[in-house]
Parts: sequence; C-alpha cells; structure tokens
Amino acid sequence: MLGIFDSGVGGLTVVRELLRRHPNAAFEYLGDTARTPYGTKGPETIQRYAVEDVQYLIEQGAHTIVVACNTVSAHAMEVLRTRFTAVRFIDVIEPAVRCVPAAAHVGIIGTSATIRSGVYERLIRERNPAAVVHSVACPLFVPLVEEGWFSGPVVERVVASYLHPLKELDIDTLILGCTHYPMLQSAIRSYLDPKVRMIDSPTAVLNAADLGFEPGRQRYAFTDLSETACTMIKRCNGKCLKPKQILLH
Amino acid sequence: MLGIFDSGVGGLTVVRELLRRHPNAAFEYLGDTARTPYGTKGPETIQRYAVEDVQYLIEQGAHTIVVACNTVSAHAMEVLRTRFTAVRFIDVIEPAVRCVPAAAHVGIIGTSATIRSGVYERLIRERNPAAVVHSVACPLFVPLVEEGWFSGPVVERVVASYLHPLKELDIDTLILGCTHYPMLQSAIRSYLDPKVRMIDSPTAVLNAADLGFEPGRQRYAFTDLSETACTMIKRCNGKCLKPKQILLH
Repeated sequence: MLGIFDSGVGGLTVVRELLRRHPNAAFEYLGDTARTPYGTKGPETIQRYAVEDVQYLIEQGAHTIVVACNTVSAHAMEVLRTRFTAVRFIDVIEPAVRCVPAAAHVGIIGTSATIRSGVYERLIRERNPAAVVHSVACPLFVPLVEEGWFSGPVVERVVASYLHPLKELDIDTLILGCTHYPMLQSAIRSYLDPKVRMIDSPTAVLNAADLGFEPGRQRYAFTDLSETACTMIKRCNGKCLKPKQILLH
Repeated sequence: MLGIFDSGVGGLTVVRELLRRHPNAAFEYLGDTARTPYGTKGPETIQRYAVEDVQYLIEQGAHTIVVACNTVSAHAMEVLRTRFTAVRFIDVIEPAVRCVPAAAHVGIIGTSATIRSGVYERLIRERNPAAVVHSVACPLFVPLVEEGWFSGPVVERVVASYLHPLKELDIDTLILGCTHYPMLQSAIRSYLDPKVRMIDSPTAVLNAADLGFEPGRQRYAFTDLSETACTMIKRCNGKCLKPKQILLH
C-alpha cells in the first residue's frame, strides 16, 4: 500500500495530482495537523515527528511512502531511510531538482526550515554545476494558503515582498519548494515574468517516480480535525469526505 | 513558584510586562514551540496540550499558573481547573473582560479557535448586558509577528483586511485577544480611530491579579528551539539568554 504524509494539509496537493492521473489508486494520507507547521521548527523536532508519521503509515500497511512535505524531505530523509530500511521512500526534493534545466538561473522558495537546510542548492549544484541558485524563505505563504487567501491585495503584497529579489535577479526557473505553494501559483506567476518556468512538487513527484499503483481504498487520517483543517481538506480534495482523527506519540 | 505558559512565544509579552513591574520575580515560562500554534487547532487538541503544559509546570514546582494564551484560556480552563484542583489558575480572558467599560461598543480580535469559542462575547454580555460586541478572527497576525513584521505595507494590508468591519462598526474599545497582538499594537492603532481604547492581555492580567511575587530564579523552557523561536525569544525578552529545551508527552 502507498502511504503519503505531510505536516498538515499541504501534501493534499500531491494527492490531488495523484488522483488526477490514477483516480482509483489505493493510498493512505496522513496529515499531522495537530503539530503543523513543521517549517518553522528545528531539525530534531522535524525528525521526531517524521519518524512517528512513518511509523503510523507502516502500521497501516504502507511499503512505499511519499514524503509529501519539503521540510521533512530537507531534514529527515537520512533518519527515515536509516531507521526504516524495508520502506521505499520518495521525497519531493530530488524529483524537483531533476527538472532543473542545465545552466538555469534558479530561484527556490520554501519554508524557513527547508531554505535553512540548503538541500536544494546542494543537490542542484551537484547535478548541475553551471546553474545559478538563489533561495528565499517565505514563512507567510503557508498561513496565507491555510487562511484560504490565494489572490487579492494581501497576497499580492506578500508575494512581492518575498519575490522581488528573485525578480531583480532575473531567474528563469522557480522551484515551489513547499507542497502548499501550488495554491499560490497563479499569484506568483502574475508577479514574475511569465517566461519563468515553474517546478512544483506534485507534478515533479508524479512525473519522476513509478509509485506502483494498485486500485483500492483511499484513506485520510489527520491528527487534528479542527474546522480550519476540514476546510482545507475539502478545498484540496472533494473526495475526502470521512477523514479519521488519530493520535500520534 | 509562578508558572506561565503559552503555545509558543506570544506569552513572552506577559513575561515582559511582569518583568517591567517586578524585575526580580521568580517564575518558569514554558512555550510549546514544537506544537505551536494552538489557535488553528481543535478544542480536544488544545485541551490535551494544555494538560501536558500544566503537568510540566507542576513538576517544576508551580502552584500559581498564568495561562498566557487566549486560545487555551478560551478552550481549556474547565478541563485544567477540574483536573488540577491544587493549582491557582489565572487566565487572560477574564481580566480583559473586566476592563470593558459599561455600554461599550467592543471589537474582539483573536485566533480562529479563540473567536470560534465565543467566550469573550459570552463573558462580556454576562457582565455588561448593554455592551455591543463584534468578533473577528485574524489568523495571519500570529505568523506576521513570528516573521518579525510589525509594520510596513504587508502589515498595513493585513490589518486593514481584518479590521475594516470593526472600523465601519465604529467600535470604541478593542480587545487584543491574543498574547502575540501587542507586537502589532501600533499598526492596529494607526489603522483605527485613535480614540479606540485598547485592552491587551499582559496589562489586564498584571493589573487584575495579585500573583504573589517572590524574588528568585527566572527560567524559560521551550519544546523546540529552532532559530525562528530563538529570534522571537530574544525580541520579546533580552534577559532570556539560556532557555532549555524540553520534551512533552
């Protein structure tokens, strides 16, 4: 069975892309909404939470796990791969890096934790020494998405505040390094030069990996089902009608 | 010993006010930065976290505990008072409500969870049936404060987006119903009529309650000490030089 997890609801953009391509694929999604966000927290906390998330999905029968969270992909892959050797892990960073064209002028946006890790820059430079790379942490993007603000004057102001250095540096490629950010893609596109190529985690993951789909049940588990979480779940996935609430730790 | 806790760093505004009045007061502050924010989460999650926070402070020797978090004050006081009968609890909502003038035209701003609880409205109407009360949830204010954005074009836009209904309703009193919000007070004041009276949790609590101060050690514990958390801790309290990291649950 396929497991997919995120710190909260952002990873549902990966589920949405999965369902667009394989409407009957069996999976269980876990969103750790009781402890979200991870992107403002330290590496040890992120690793501890990621281990608990994976333990839950393994208990549900997952053999392949998509880490649908850039923050976890940036800080916990080594811990997860060392600890859970029988699981096949697919993170969201390597597939995105593989989409970067040679000699690209790349902007990377993500949570504070993702950007601080420097993982995107390192992997892009390893693969593609001619690339020029600039990173910007955008801590307000996740709260904007969770507030349901995808356009309008506040969003425009916040997008401009974070992205103006990338605009001035004349990037040709932008990595949306957080699974929440596809929800802001049109606001970002309006601000940047329309020729900038955008790389988003859901598309990159689904293009890159053969996840071995089987038809079957689609399950959703969340550690907190507040009204806020339910609204976001509905917004990302109309099919997710009966999520269950679980307790981790 | 005095215990003070919050979902994260917002409660440090209460510590700042305490230290302004009683620089040598003994206390331990706990910020649950590994699970912050609470204000976007559901009542059961908030109650579970509050119980764990209080258990920690009791283990450290606290007999009086200031719940320096409006979200916990709105959702968990009954659970805490029933479960920990030997502790004297001081929440941040009742002291603020006692500051509301008779027949006031009151605006209340807070997290989604605080506003959804309806506790402020209920207590104000009980105490003051002639008051007119309007509430607005402002979910982006906490992320703005944690990002360190207290002024500037983004803050002005966000403040205007949330507060324009209160401005149109011509309120004369505003309750800053979240311990983060004093950091945005000048931006809020610039937007509203300067005659609007502001009631903030730190001042209300310190004015209302005799916390029984004794001189002694001042300790700070956080469940996550990421760079983001450390920056906010320094910003709120220059004295907090060596916070310790602890594990809850």
